[in-house]
Amino acid sequence: MRFLHTADWHIGKKLAGYDLLAEQQFAYEQIVQLAKEEHVDAIVIAGDLYDRAQPSELAVKTLNEMLQRLNLTEKLPVLAISGNHDSATRLATGSPWYTATQFYLRTTLAAAFKPIEIGNTQFFLLPYFEPFAARQYFEEDDIHQISTAMKFVVAKMRSEFLPNKKHVLVAHFFAAGSSTTDSETKITVGGLDAVPLTLLTDFDYVALGHLHSKDALHAEKIRYSGSPVKFSISEADQEKGVWIVDTESNQVDFHPLKPLHDVRTLKASFAELSDSTFYKTQQRDDFLAIQLTDQKIIPNVMQELRKIYPRIVSLTRTTGPVVKPQMRRQIRKLDPLTLLANYFTDVTGEQLTEQQQQWATKMLKASQEQKEDN
Amino acid sequence: MRFLHTADWHIGKKLAGYDLLAEQQFAYEQIVQLAKEEHVDAIVIAGDLYDRAQPSELAVKTLNEMLQRLNLTEKLPVLAISGNHDSATRLATGSPWYTATQFYLRTTLAAAFKPIEIGNTQFFLLPYFEPFAARQYFEEDDIHQISTAMKFVVAKMRSEFLPNKKHVLVAHFFAAGSSTTDSETKITVGGLDAVPLTLLTDFDYVALGHLHSKDALHAEKIRYSGSPVKFSISEADQEKGVWIVDTESNQVDFHPLKPLHDVRTLKASFAELSDSTFYKTQQRDDFLAIQLTDQKIIPNVMQELRKIYPRIVSLTRTTGPVVKPQMRRQIRKLDPLTLLANYFTDVTGEQLTEQQQQWATKMLKASQEQKEDN
Repeated sequence: MRFLHTADWHIGKKLAGYDLLAEQQFAYEQIVQLAKEEHVDAIVIAGDLYDRAQPSELAVKTLNEMLQRLNLTEKLPVLAISGNHDSATRLATGSPWYTATQFYLRTTLAAAFKPIEIGNTQFFLLPYFEPFAARQYFEEDDIHQISTAMKFVVAKMRSEFLPNKKHVLVAHFFAAGSSTTDSETKITVGGLDAVPLTLLTDFDYVALGHLHSKDALHAEKIRYSGSPVKFSISEADQEKGVWIVDTESNQVDFHPLKPLHDVRTLKASFAELSDSTFYKTQQRDDFLAIQLTDQKIIPNVMQELRKIYPRIVSLTRTTGPVVKPQMRRQIRKLDPLTLLANYFTDVTGEQLTEQQQQWATKMLKASQEQKEDN
Repeated sequence: MRFLHTADWHIGKKLAGYDLLAEQQFAYEQIVQLAKEEHVDAIVIAGDLYDRAQPSELAVKTLNEMLQRLNLTEKLPVLAISGNHDSATRLATGSPWYTATQFYLRTTLAAAFKPIEIGNTQFFLLPYFEPFAARQYFEEDDIHQISTAMKFVVAKMRSEFLPNKKHVLVAHFFAAGSSTTDSETKITVGGLDAVPLTLLTDFDYVALGHLHSKDALHAEKIRYSGSPVKFSISEADQEKGVWIVDTESNQVDFHPLKPLHDVRTLKASFAELSDSTFYKTQQRDDFLAIQLTDQKIIPNVMQELRKIYPRIVSLTRTTGPVVKPQMRRQIRKLDPLTLLANYFTDVTGEQLTEQQQQWATKMLKASQEQKEDN
């Protein structure tokens, strides 16, 4: 059994407002190509196929086409589970029909205990689940954490092990020892406790989804594939790709995927960034988190930079404008209108007109009243 | 070929806030039973499977289970199209896999010209479509209305007719001569023009969806099935059910479906409605549009009536309270606080306390200020 392990496609995800479908499509094409070149027997997708429980029509269309081509055109068996970003119920649509063409899409805890046998391997497809689902399923009141639940889950799976087969677990959770990045933070902070690796050693391979870096774990046979695409600036330095796993030879190889546009940090002054001798050396259409080294106020800085760099995902300063303590005391004494007028003059080099002063006064008053109301 | 014709399931629809899933499930069970008893060769569902483009998880789960049971458990061929309430893109999920078990779900105009052959019959599955889709498909700039589009559609379908077969069109639009009810009003007002019946005479049967009454058309071989459930009070007098169509014997029979709870109007005085000798004669848990014949103010009338009739969908009066012109003039002179105080006394029989007066004054002031702001 030779399979390709991927996860966390997050179809429909945006990065700072930019649609990532083209990036995802570009990675997908490489995955299909790899699967064919490497003659894999199956594709494993370990959860988070969509980015949201209610994906957009375009996201639905895109994923439907991707899965249809993999399974119906390329005739590849597909083993997939729902992740915490998917609506298990919505994703399950059609799944009873899919098995006829070896597309195994599992979205319930109960389904995890009916392994899929392909070649020499039993696949256990464990979707993302909440502790209460395990509490109900096992009728054990003491299950309050995924780690506790996993003891029961693994024990039940072991009872289904055929001794002459290889055993692969496909799952979507936070395994102990993993490090995290921005785009998963919400989840782990949200209370997903960690599953200790010691619980997972009975399997010949554990194909994980949830964390977006392939390096989140350091275990030979328990791996995150990571996402096929960089989804946030905190993933800038991650190498994206898929694993190709051979349960016969016990070999696991990483195959990197090229990005359509990279996601990276760019640190420079406004003058450098605007200088053609500099920006000609740059892949200007990358997704860029720009760190400005300037201290002065720069009028319309974002608009100006976007003329050169069309995909700026964030703009920060390595250091704030220098404000001396004495100046700060002076500023504190000023009324809001004077502050606004001074700022306007700083940025535009012009004075507020009388009409502008009237508008400003009115808006400041309204804002003040709103504050008092709340 | 003997098939059951239904449409407009609108899974997920609510009536005045009341969930209708139990009603829909009750109708569905009768449809399955009928299909089995009548030994039909197929089930036709002529659009609006869901009530909304983004149905709830519960609606998705319900429809998925209904279709799965019809097609995979009962092994019935299913021919279905998307209606104007469905998102064609979302509904299409899984459809490429469905055909293997004779579940033909069509959501695009192009698919309408590849007839499905079952037994002696060619089925043309035409989903709801917008004129621009036909404009693009036929490359005809002059298509601005469904009626114009249908000339091209029918001509193209005719070119696919096999002369030794029967020809059935399944479609979802407004056919000429139809009368409408509340729950479709938005659509027809929204600009769906009517398709003249003369365009549809080439077919041996036209199974329509869109209008909720089986009596919306009076043509032998062009029929709306109507919805299986009453969806609004304007449908109170409609008989709900399905057609069973036999293309061999050219017979078309209506089979009524029983409602779990009926939808109907109830006209009486508050005293009658509250009288147990009256309400014991009533199916009290029906969905009721109550028309009160009283003229007086009745305190907490809705809460009081709901204790007896748990599913009131509307409460109106056959005539408003009598206010004489002189009284009206007096009322106009009163300030809002006095008006409120008088109304309070009318309804409760008590005076506003000092605290209540303070609250009322504050709220009236706030409301007045908000008005001035807007």
